[in-house]
Amino acid sequence: MDVRIPPDFDPIRADELKSVERERAQALQKQGKWRHLWRIAGQYSNISIFDVETVQELHDIVSTLPLFPFMDIAVTPLCRHPSSIREDDR
Amino acid sequence: MDVRIPPDFDPIRADELKSVERERAQALQKQGKWRHLWRIAGQYSNISIFDVETVQELHDIVSTLPLFPFMDIAVTPLCRHPSSIREDDR
Amino acid sequence: MDVRIPPDFDPIRADELKSVERERAQALQKQGKWRHLWRIAGQYSNISIFDVETVQELHDIVSTLPLFPFMDIAVTPLCRHPSSIREDDR
Amino acid sequence: MDVRIPPDFDPIRADELKSVERERAQALQKQGKWRHLWRIAGQYSNISIFDVETVQELHDIVSTLPLFPFMDIAVTPLCRHPSSIREDDR
Amino acid sequence: MDVRIPPDFDPIRADELKSVERERAQALQKQGKWRHLWRIAGQYSNISIFDVETVQELHDIVSTLPLFPFMDIAVTPLCRHPSSIREDDR
Amino acid sequence: MDVRIPPDFDPIRADELKSVERERAQALQKQGKWRHLWRIAGQYSNISIFDVETVQELHDIVSTLPLFPFMDIAVTPLCRHPSSIREDDR
Amino acid sequence: MDVRIPPDFDPIRADELKSVERERAQALQKQGKWRHLWRIAGQYSNISIFDVETVQELHDIVSTLPLFPFMDIAVTPLCRHPSSIREDDR
Amino acid sequence: MDVRIPPDFDPIRADELKSVERERAQALQKQGKWRHLWRIAGQYSNISIFDVETVQELHDIVSTLPLFPFMDIAVTPLCRHPSSIREDDR
Amino acid sequence: MDVRIPPDFDPIRADELKSVERERAQALQKQGKWRHLWRIAGQYSNISIFDVETVQELHDIVSTLPLFPFMDIAVTPLCRHPSSIREDDR
Amino acid sequence: MDVRIPPDFDPIRADELKSVERERAQALQKQGKWRHLWRIAGQYSNISIFDVETVQELHDIVSTLPLFPFMDIAVTPLCRHPSSIREDDR
Repeated sequence: MDVRIPPDFDPIRADELKSVERERAQALQKQGKWRHLWRIAGQYSNISIFDVETVQELHDIVSTLPLFPFMDIAVTPLCRHPSSIREDDR
Repeated sequence: MDVRIPPDFDPIRADELKSVERERAQALQKQGKWRHLWRIAGQYSNISIFDVETVQELHDIVSTLPLFPFMDIAVTPLCRHPSSIREDDR
Repeated sequence: MDVRIPPDFDPIRADELKSVERERAQALQKQGKWRHLWRIAGQYSNISIFDVETVQELHDIVSTLPLFPFMDIAVTPLCRHPSSIREDDR
Repeated sequence: MDVRIPPDFDPIRADELKSVERERAQALQKQGKWRHLWRIAGQYSNISIFDVETVQELHDIVSTLPLFPFMDIAVTPLCRHPSSIREDDR
Repeated sequence: MDVRIPPDFDPIRADELKSVERERAQALQKQGKWRHLWRIAGQYSNISIFDVETVQELHDIVSTLPLFPFMDIAVTPLCRHPSSIREDDR
Repeated sequence: MDVRIPPDFDPIRADELKSVERERAQALQKQGKWRHLWRIAGQYSNISIFDVETVQELHDIVSTLPLFPFMDIAVTPLCRHPSSIREDDR
Repeated sequence: MDVRIPPDFDPIRADELKSVERERAQALQKQGKWRHLWRIAGQYSNISIFDVETVQELHDIVSTLPLFPFMDIAVTPLCRHPSSIREDDR
Repeated sequence: MDVRIPPDFDPIRADELKSVERERAQALQKQGKWRHLWRIAGQYSNISIFDVETVQELHDIVSTLPLFPFMDIAVTPLCRHPSSIREDDR
Repeated sequence: MDVRIPPDFDPIRADELKSVERERAQALQKQGKWRHLWRIAGQYSNISIFDVETVQELHDIVSTLPLFPFMDIAVTPLCRHPSSIREDDR
Repeated sequence: MDVRIPPDFDPIRADELKSVERERAQALQKQGKWRHLWRIAGQYSNISIFDVETVQELHDIVSTLPLFPFMDIAVTPLCRHPSSIREDDR
């Protein structure tokens, strides 16, 4: 997820969106839907791991994020690696 | 990590390399160095999260993997996301 | 799915693989897993729509196709479009 | 089809365009011209399958969609796959 | 259409293929299916305009060309331009 | 030639430019300089074949088109294909 | 680091940001965190070598630079080369 | 060097900049620093050959051109070709 | 022009081809057809300026070079720049 | 500099080349020509800083490295950054 807020966007509105985004992200993490969330160094971007039942659920989650209109998102479908030893990395 | 073993490579030698690779991957996971390991659906590729002290340690780990000569590896440096709630995702 | 069989690959073996591939593709279509299958004009490539329960199931299906070692596969996760009128395009 | 409506576009006008777009899309689906329509997960984009008589007809359909000025469209010509078992996937 | 014959391919067999290719290309031009054929300067590539009834017909024509296994082909669907004055450029 | 008129460009001025562009394009076709002109399906783009004496003449023609400031143009130099049977496709 | 300040950005504010950026860059160089800094000829871009303890420290440094909102930054993790003879190039 | 002046840039100021640019370009050509200058057909771009003592001199020349803020410049370092017969193409 | 001779190509044959290539290049330079020839630093590639009557002549020249089968060639059509002061850079 | 030695290259010859490469690299570092040399983590690639008088000297150095035939090299011309405080980073 790359976030690109235009330089002339109202900074107060941007802060509001970021604050709601943060709450949503943390609530989804607590529910276990948003499993991992890392910052890419040097960029206003993140790499996230979602654990959802269906592609529809994933789309519903990310497309309703407050910053979705400012994001470029690429989804890579992952599954269990035969050499993985973590039960929860499926 | 994309793995590309040439089609004319000796399949017995390939299986040996894959077997050692798997043991190395699992040992590194047990040590906590190789934190996550997922298969990218439809590809002979994986996405991995390493938790190392230094860039040098990361290079020493991956460049000594048995399949390293057949891999294309791209490293994205990650750090803690301010909205993350997992202590171990730094 | 782009198929690239090396020019010096044994043509008899290639025909065998293609024949088994075809049987697998048709069986999976009959099961409803492989929903659509089109040829891209001018290329030895196809565009396919799979209807599977999990990412794991998709990976297990395509990674065991006889021609998988010769394929470049890119998976795009799809879901229902709000303007779609077909019940089965989810 | 990727849709990119500029962030400063009038939201009421955007909603009107989307509403007309939806009606057009559904009418074309009912006529059988717009055979399939899926959402790409995480993106304001779709993958569509059209079933038209000529390239001209395809261009006339998509270039008169209300959101056409905001779309990047790439057309891949498809034809019947020899292993397909669906009569209507030609 | 980019043609890439491997450097170690038998030159006599290559000349045979090119000769048959040329006959096929000229026959198709005489039928009006292969409307235009230009060489891209400095490359073993061509730009061609086909005039076919269906995508299927186009695929059947190019995929049975003798040099098809050595070609990279990209198909761009064209239609009549509203400012064109040539009746036959549709 | 890809045409990209900004969404906030004055539509009356845009229509004037398109109208002059069309006249210029048709005059150049009548002179035989602009040999072919096709629309790329699904895009506000065209593929054109020019038949000019020099590179300078080509540049002078396209750089004085009314829509030139809004176009991305890529020129591919073409010459006669040895298998072509049309005298005028040089 | 590529810097792209929009052409309509207030030039006085831009000069202020550049001045603070320069002070920050020089302070970080004196601390030894920002080891090298070169201009790429012909571009408003630089290539920099940072010497930091952690990825987090690198992100904290560059994401707080005054021009960060106008930069495209790509981070390549480096480590000691076995043939290097400089003790400080690790 | 690609020049991209925004469509809403003041045309009088643009003409002034282009006029000074032209004078600078011609003065540098007379000094022998700017050895060759060609227009790329169909584009507002040029290919130039500079003959400078150092990379620094090249950067100082191009980064002070009046249109520099509107240019994308890629520098390819060239040297004498062993088969060249021109003394001045070093 | 990028030259890529396969590592397993007979080195004696390669030297013969390079020698004939060099003679051809120098003869064409003496005729004024091959106006400039530079080496790209760090690569087995060159940038060349040709001065020919037609696109056909250019293709005939480069496609008969002894190393043509091992080259990737991209042709950029150039013309006189309005600010150029060299009569012979047209 | 990316190094790609084919998998079927004689490993004894490869080790000889690497050993001579290492000696050359260290001698050039001692002379101050090859200023910096880092390994890119996870790749058989390096990023190097050269300090040479001319482009010709750079090409002569890298094109005579024993592994040059197996390398992809991209040269980025650098110069002093106005905010740099190191006298030797010019």
